[in-house]
Amino acid sequence: MCQPRAGTDRRNVRLVPVTSVFDWLDTRADERRRAGLTRTLRPRRPDSDLLDLAGNDYLGLSRDKRVAGAAAAATLRWGAGATGSRLVTGTIEAHTELEHELASFCGTQAALVFSSGFTANLGAVTALSGKGSAIVTDAYLHASLIDGCRLSRADVAVVAHGDPSAAAHALRTRRTERALMVTDSVFSVDGDLAALPALHAACRETRAALVVDDAHGLGVLGEGGRGAVADAGLIGEPDVVTTVTLSKALGAQGGAVLGPRRVIKHLVDSARSFIFDTGLAPASTAAALTALNILRDEPDLPGRVRGNALALSQRLRAAGLRATEPAAAVVSVLAPTPEAALRWAEDCRSAGVWVGCFRPPSVPDGVSRLRLTARADLTEGEVDRAVEVITRCAPPRAGAS
Amino acid sequence: MCQPRAGTDRRNVRLVPVTSVFDWLDTRADERRRAGLTRTLRPRRPDSDLLDLAGNDYLGLSRDKRVAGAAAAATLRWGAGATGSRLVTGTIEAHTELEHELASFCGTQAALVFSSGFTANLGAVTALSGKGSAIVTDAYLHASLIDGCRLSRADVAVVAHGDPSAAAHALRTRRTERALMVTDSVFSVDGDLAALPALHAACRETRAALVVDDAHGLGVLGEGGRGAVADAGLIGEPDVVTTVTLSKALGAQGGAVLGPRRVIKHLVDSARSFIFDTGLAPASTAAALTALNILRDEPDLPGRVRGNALALSQRLRAAGLRATEPAAAVVSVLAPTPEAALRWAEDCRSAGVWVGCFRPPSVPDGVSRLRLTARADLTEGEVDRAVEVITRCAPPRAGAS
Repeated sequence: MCQPRAGTDRRNVRLVPVTSVFDWLDTRADERRRAGLTRTLRPRRPDSDLLDLAGNDYLGLSRDKRVAGAAAAATLRWGAGATGSRLVTGTIEAHTELEHELASFCGTQAALVFSSGFTANLGAVTALSGKGSAIVTDAYLHASLIDGCRLSRADVAVVAHGDPSAAAHALRTRRTERALMVTDSVFSVDGDLAALPALHAACRETRAALVVDDAHGLGVLGEGGRGAVADAGLIGEPDVVTTVTLSKALGAQGGAVLGPRRVIKHLVDSARSFIFDTGLAPASTAAALTALNILRDEPDLPGRVRGNALALSQRLRAAGLRATEPAAAVVSVLAPTPEAALRWAEDCRSAGVWVGCFRPPSVPDGVSRLRLTARADLTEGEVDRAVEVITRCAPPRAGAS
Repeated sequence: MCQPRAGTDRRNVRLVPVTSVFDWLDTRADERRRAGLTRTLRPRRPDSDLLDLAGNDYLGLSRDKRVAGAAAAATLRWGAGATGSRLVTGTIEAHTELEHELASFCGTQAALVFSSGFTANLGAVTALSGKGSAIVTDAYLHASLIDGCRLSRADVAVVAHGDPSAAAHALRTRRTERALMVTDSVFSVDGDLAALPALHAACRETRAALVVDDAHGLGVLGEGGRGAVADAGLIGEPDVVTTVTLSKALGAQGGAVLGPRRVIKHLVDSARSFIFDTGLAPASTAAALTALNILRDEPDLPGRVRGNALALSQRLRAAGLRATEPAAAVVSVLAPTPEAALRWAEDCRSAGVWVGCFRPPSVPDGVSRLRLTARADLTEGEVDRAVEVITRCAPPRAGAS
């Protein structure tokens, strides 16, 4: 298309090229490039022989033949899509069964399946708060919970990361009757754990409800993988709501909210990201259900993933790297700059080990790092190889503060 | 669990039962019940013999053997889940191929696949606006676009439904340099069409960008189903961004943003609902790709669904019902009350015809209605049966204003 160029038409000084509408995007792209923050999408091949320490398939169930087989069978039986909102044609029997099994496994009265963990978090936070209520959050909250808070119209108070006394103070000094304390259980970047018992005590004392995103806890923490909220003894409490993903330990796609029956009923009637979204695809629903059954039948899987994460962390720390101590499956290795993190990750990849590279805006403290995730099915040889490659590519000296 | 009851402990008058934290949900539930606005989830059976006029599977491709077969094969090849964010391990080759094919089919430089249409809309609106920019929207916008606007921190002006002069006025009188005009192409409740050429002319005149949700246009409108934006001759324009769903005409799950390459690159770097979400499952990705190829190979499908929608509308209107004139595949039948709409829908269902029942908050004007969707694969006999049943269950008199 031929467009007039800015400034070339003296008869109309306001004439501008239409393409200039998005020129600001180029400026932003330049800024990101200079800051080492440009992202690229790198398609994964089905036959890749990279050692995967970057994904969230903690139990290795995404490619489990039983899980993939159930997904394939559900597609052939139900079709490829849910065809509508869960409130119209988009609820299939498998959704109901998955909701029943999730609630029964974790120990809540009820559960509700969303198309993603992102929309589950948006739905839970917005539907349970609203104008005239308060929300207190940890500063390192997952983006989907932050967006839920932004959408909530509630008075939002953000307190320092991992500081339950600050949270309690904010809850005590709020000006509204209703309040939510919102937190991740396992923080996604460093894999550290929220002080759930202390946060719940503060909620109980101040008549607030506790909303916990257990995305990285389900299948990894608690007895048989029942998650961090169960591990803290809080899962069935009437003032606790838990959100989970079906796309991490359960190897599929989707998210769910677990809690008291009246909370779940309320979400059905009022969570916008549930009502105005197409239901989760039959394949993903059946995959998550099958993965949950496997987890129930193989209660040693969570211990294996935690053991592998601990081994990775201990050996990287012994080699002098600034690796975090894992509460669950995630280990971070701090880097001095975004460029260093990116270079380390690229070098690891070239050496056959795929690690995550987290840079702003994906890191709440602005510090870039490698993010390693353990899997239940990592072998000793794979852990050895990972430690050898990472130690070589991310030199301990460079990570020193 | 045994909890103290409110007021039973005289030593501490502030003692309250923990269950009271969510008591307000029961009050809300009572209010909804009295207003006829309670929702129930009714699981669909795979062998249901209901005539489906409620889903959004416009081309009947969700259960097409080629589509479901491709989804099943992709699951067995790639696994049940994407295993991570699209920026980490969650991009598979099929995502890239689908993005290429969507852009090529519709006629844009690039495309980006999200896990839902909801998150695609959140991502497009928030990443392309922001503090210091303005957004002008139609009053009947889809909930996901409204939430995108609420998250955007932009100055948002909502103008009357279907009023491009009001939109132009709002764009002209804005106080910011950057602006978006945001609209659905086909409004989801009544199936009416936005005045895209007039809206685009207003954008061009005022140096704003146009963001169009073509969820109900793709596969239904435009040459070969290229959508409403293509039909208006706007699809390749450098100041136009289109969002689509993969869960309606393409029978799968997911959403996508289509537009200039620099817009798509910007979304990869900054759309929070893209960065912080697990990638679309392999099954849904492959299903959408196969459905798109079928649409390309069978360009008469869109005409068939439009013809069926028109036939439904004309015959219901001839029978005296207040049915909308369909621009695409959606026909609404207005009801006097939420209770009437619900009763009509239940009666239709008992008679073997499944129609949607839309009540507040799913209707922007507060008017409850039946929502019928045509499919390309409806037979004449099915249209006859639908008209007969709906006319019987939703008596023309009752719908008169």
